[in-house]
Amino acid sequence: MKRDYFLSLENLTPYQSLDLDEFIHNLAFNEQGLIPVITQDIKTNTVLMFAWMNRQALNKTIDLGLMTYWSRSRKKLWVKGESSGHFQSLRSLRFDCDGDAVLCLVEQEQFACHTGRKSCFYFELEKSTNRVVVISASELS
Amino acid sequence: MKRDYFLSLENLTPYQSLDLDEFIHNLAFNEQGLIPVITQDIKTNTVLMFAWMNRQALNKTIDLGLMTYWSRSRKKLWVKGESSGHFQSLRSLRFDCDGDAVLCLVEQEQFACHTGRKSCFYFELEKSTNRVVVISASELS
Repeated sequence: MKRDYFLSLENLTPYQSLDLDEFIHNLAFNEQGLIPVITQDIKTNTVLMFAWMNRQALNKTIDLGLMTYWSRSRKKLWVKGESSGHFQSLRSLRFDCDGDAVLCLVEQEQFACHTGRKSCFYFELEKSTNRVVVISASELS
Repeated sequence: MKRDYFLSLENLTPYQSLDLDEFIHNLAFNEQGLIPVITQDIKTNTVLMFAWMNRQALNKTIDLGLMTYWSRSRKKLWVKGESSGHFQSLRSLRFDCDGDAVLCLVEQEQFACHTGRKSCFYFELEKSTNRVVVISASELS
């Protein structure tokens, strides 16, 4: 049924629109009620982090305008920045063609990564040496 | 144990490196043996798609230099572009701070999305109207 919903949308043209509640209803939340979320810096297009939302986190993110995730380790809603001050203000929220992922473009306060780095994706494959290398701040894009 | 491995890496400095096989061994593959993958255009930084890899897909992507996913619907390895010709050449492969997601920067042949769009993330929330709007090709960034 959910797959049929997204199949039926493939030929829509730009600016056509859909009811938000119906769209969210059809999203492919997994068995734990979660959907993957990619968070991207709207100014640089750097991918900042990857996390998860349940329906409540998604609704709260939309209502509040601040990125709110489901913490799988702490088993609770988590407004990003609530302890660090490193809030992420939502500027654009997008869904993919088959409704199984969310992409959020944000304005990031300070650092996205809890380690103090701009992005969480700071390990890079170096194929020639079969190593994984820590990349520098300037390369984090 | 795996969480300890990534905790132990938090204070590494740029250009420090790790053994690739040990790093991959410690990645947080889920109960189905899969890890989330974000694929981004290396030229524009547009997020193109979201998919999954198992260990075999990850190793094949690294060896072959072409993005290779695990298709959850078809339950098989899937070299992106093998039927459409829309291959994705791997240019940088990155891992996040807690080893539970992969970010791949690629050169994309033609379109990432099976619908013929540049990116799969073509549905955008329009909060003022409570609608989801199909965005145009020029806005897909």
